[in-house]
Amino acid sequence: MAKYDKNDKISYSLGVFPTYELINKRAQYCKRVLLHEKLEESAQIDALLSICRQKSIPTETASRKIENLSNKDNTYVVGEFEKYSCALDDNANHVVLVEPADMGNLGTILRTALGFGYRNVAIIGNGADYFSPKCVRASMGAVFSHNVCRFNSFEEYSAQFPRAFYPFMTNGKTELSQLQVKVPHSVIFGNESTGLPENFQRIGQSVVIAHSGEIDSLNLSIALSIALYEIKQKAY
Amino acid sequence: MAKYDKNDKISYSLGVFPTYELINKRAQYCKRVLLHEKLEESAQIDALLSICRQKSIPTETASRKIENLSNKDNTYVVGEFEKYSCALDDNANHVVLVEPADMGNLGTILRTALGFGYRNVAIIGNGADYFSPKCVRASMGAVFSHNVCRFNSFEEYSAQFPRAFYPFMTNGKTELSQLQVKVPHSVIFGNESTGLPENFQRIGQSVVIAHSGEIDSLNLSIALSIALYEIKQKAY
Repeated sequence: MAKYDKNDKISYSLGVFPTYELINKRAQYCKRVLLHEKLEESAQIDALLSICRQKSIPTETASRKIENLSNKDNTYVVGEFEKYSCALDDNANHVVLVEPADMGNLGTILRTALGFGYRNVAIIGNGADYFSPKCVRASMGAVFSHNVCRFNSFEEYSAQFPRAFYPFMTNGKTELSQLQVKVPHSVIFGNESTGLPENFQRIGQSVVIAHSGEIDSLNLSIALSIALYEIKQKAY
Repeated sequence: MAKYDKNDKISYSLGVFPTYELINKRAQYCKRVLLHEKLEESAQIDALLSICRQKSIPTETASRKIENLSNKDNTYVVGEFEKYSCALDDNANHVVLVEPADMGNLGTILRTALGFGYRNVAIIGNGADYFSPKCVRASMGAVFSHNVCRFNSFEEYSAQFPRAFYPFMTNGKTELSQLQVKVPHSVIFGNESTGLPENFQRIGQSVVIAHSGEIDSLNLSIALSIALYEIKQKAY
């Protein structure tokens, strides 16, 4: 039986919590819930089965398929869903990720962004597959609360969403703590290894997170989380 | 040939950058540097070989051993080092991690902590192996700039270091933004899955990082990074 492939029109939420989030937020795209024969009763499972009944999501026992999808790592519940498209909210603040490579990082970012009130994420170029089981799991299902939308280039994105742009760069011109935050805005981060290309210095107001000279840079999900935290502090 | 085992007295830095940091910061513990036959010349390699000569660290070609240690993932340089003990600096601020489980997370934390001026880390209980090749690599060699010290219990640690304690908990009493920071202090974080035990509410001043109700909690390395960033903002 084939594993998940990024070109499939179908993907999977592995685990009870991400599957609950899938049904809670995007029931219309959930085709069915697979259960492992080793699944034991619990309050969490009761809640999951109850929301499946409420939203008329079929359940079936499919242990082999679950083991295959999850590399036999004690996953006992899997949600099967049709990939869907989202539009970004024009009035909301956005997170823009330029070619993020790592699905686990992307999931962590989606979860943290939701925690700081961002629900609209643009992915520029050939970024990580946000509907992959790995990203869905790392996001703890937060991906289903977001509008995530892919654009071929930053120009394509910025033409559609003219607003305050904050590209984060290790040589950014304004320190995060000094940033005057406008709304709506987009915080923009580059790839894990390479950061943003230098031409982002000419796009909006470039920002740097001050840190000691003993490290080269903060890692992507850390830097982005600090940025969203600090901007939320300024805003409320 | 055996792989790394956490009970070994020897561990390894995989990659040029962590190995450079090993020699730069802890040359006395570096026994030798292993080079892969596929290693190509570069400015980075020149700098590494030059610091090896300066500090009298022997180099040798050992391609098979490198492939074995690194799972053949294009690592061409490995530093072999003797594990060492550190004492924590009594006057410095500390990061205290109670039973951190994940070596990758721990490495990220060590790197970020160094970026915000923390160089002393206490690990309480059966925490992740901070000298494991995985942690060393995730830290980008930052582990070699730290004093990392293990304690059997928080009581053993706190008896030795009486000071301001800030346990971070999802039900902490003070919001991070409102915290009056004393020096020296210790920021205290629990395990990735379970957080700190409830009795830490009675230890020092418990702190919470406010986030929306749409996520249960921030993940460990994210929360810790935000904490260290915000405390640094208050202090300088």
